[in-house]
Amino acid sequence: MGRILCAGLGPGDPDLISVRSDRAIRAATDIAHFRKAGRAGQARRIVEGMLRPDVVEHAMEYPVTTELPFDSPDYIEALARFYDEWASRLSELSKTRDVVVLCEGDPFLYGSFMHLYTRLQGRAEVEVIPGIPGMVGCWWATGTPITWGDDVLTVMAGTLPEADLVAHMERSDAIVVMKTGRNLPKIKRALAVAGRLDAAWLVERGTMPTQRIARLVDVAAEDCPYFAIVLVHGQGRRPELGDEA
Amino acid sequence: MGRILCAGLGPGDPDLISVRSDRAIRAATDIAHFRKAGRAGQARRIVEGMLRPDVVEHAMEYPVTTELPFDSPDYIEALARFYDEWASRLSELSKTRDVVVLCEGDPFLYGSFMHLYTRLQGRAEVEVIPGIPGMVGCWWATGTPITWGDDVLTVMAGTLPEADLVAHMERSDAIVVMKTGRNLPKIKRALAVAGRLDAAWLVERGTMPTQRIARLVDVAAEDCPYFAIVLVHGQGRRPELGDEA
Ligand SMILES: C[S@@+](CC[C@H](N)C(=O)[O-])C[C@H]1O[C@@H](n2cnc3c(N)ncnc32)[C@H](O)[C@@H]1O
Ligand SMILES: C[S@@+](CC[C@H](N)C(=O)[O-])C[C@H]1O[C@@H](n2cnc3c(N)ncnc32)[C@H](O)[C@@H]1O
Repeated sequence: MGRILCAGLGPGDPDLISVRSDRAIRAATDIAHFRKAGRAGQARRIVEGMLRPDVVEHAMEYPVTTELPFDSPDYIEALARFYDEWASRLSELSKTRDVVVLCEGDPFLYGSFMHLYTRLQGRAEVEVIPGIPGMVGCWWATGTPITWGDDVLTVMAGTLPEADLVAHMERSDAIVVMKTGRNLPKIKRALAVAGRLDAAWLVERGTMPTQRIARLVDVAAEDCPYFAIVLVHGQGRRPELGDEA
Repeated sequence: MGRILCAGLGPGDPDLISVRSDRAIRAATDIAHFRKAGRAGQARRIVEGMLRPDVVEHAMEYPVTTELPFDSPDYIEALARFYDEWASRLSELSKTRDVVVLCEGDPFLYGSFMHLYTRLQGRAEVEVIPGIPGMVGCWWATGTPITWGDDVLTVMAGTLPEADLVAHMERSDAIVVMKTGRNLPKIKRALAVAGRLDAAWLVERGTMPTQRIARLVDVAAEDCPYFAIVLVHGQGRRPELGDEA
């Protein structure tokens, strides 16, 4: 009897993988990872050079999406079937060996692995190894602390309606917006309405060799990277007070 | 010329330290860490057994606080002096060797190291190594994803006024409250007002051998652990939609 091990990979630099995930990845005989059809996939790219030469790779390719709108019932249905199938295949595989599922950042923070995780309950032994979330690598890249003292940090997805983005941005000291891509113009408008655009940064591929950091105001409207995070740093409500850590 | 290296330690389990921090800690000839007078300090405890036998330890002891209220001008003044002194001592030390400063979780997320970091700018070469935040270890410990799809996650400190806690809790899908301790009764009341108390968990010392997880409603009012986090999981606004990760 094997296990399904979901290994959090951290933001991108392989040196930022945890000791436990690093060990699991290097020892893996079978790995699985999500990717878009025909693309390499971020998770797989992070572990390049770390795998055993005889490793068996299981690429979990998302169903093709170009002909279906992202939120149509047909697409949602296709995705549910995709997760069902992979849950079955992985639990079958895990009967005879360990399978390491690669997951960028931390698997429990907006991770696709959850859709397998819920389906695998009671059908296989599953272990999750936490990772440094992508956003932590992005604020690290800016060289500035994200929260001080009593700052409130709100993490949101750029897929939210514009009014919701504005409402959350207005009430928060520090802001993280994930899932940028085509949502970037909307995120920019929301930040402007909330009066935070001038303080916002865009970090693409944080901690990776191709990392790019820019003030969001300087980013062209037509530039819509998917693997990027928008950040506004907290200014510290009580910067001088000490804590134990 | 040496450097000051701030090593993020992650939530507590030494196996969850990043490969880069692990390497820096094991090679260190000089380490520094915060602690309360007479206490061992969480950060130091995490690296027990990892240090060179001849390592030189610099314990940065917070000024004694019992006779001064936590937010009095005198205490704030004493703390500022404490950070000034240690910034000078560390920059002096770093002229002849590397010094590794131990920091629980991620140094840039509510970390005390920031108070040294700002003071050291231009005076020493400083490098920060990110870590898995304590909250990530705490949601991992509950075995349940913290956010799905479009969920909004708000991270706040239990030190905030009760009305602010309520306002943020009401608007968020997933909730993290750091800095519990004496604030726990207030946090509990705020969650009740926001209608989220029944869904809340208390995780003490997440990922450490003495980890304890309880439903917050079951925790006695007089039980006020400092090294704990209160969590409410998001339920997923669009649980079936897929992303690249
Ligand atoms: C489906 S979420 C997965 C999040 C992941 N589980 C984590 O903990 O970071 C994908 C989003 O993560 C963000 N992301 C993750 N790592 C990143 C990095 N190194 N640089 C920039 N964005 C990143 C991007 O916003 C992307 O749209
Ligand atoms: C000054 S903050 C430091 C946060 C740290 N830099 C991080 O990234 O987690 C101290 C607070 O962190 C929280 N904390 C950090 N690690 C924890 C863990 N493993 N279990 C429970 N609480 C933790 C507690 O709420 C504590 O009051």
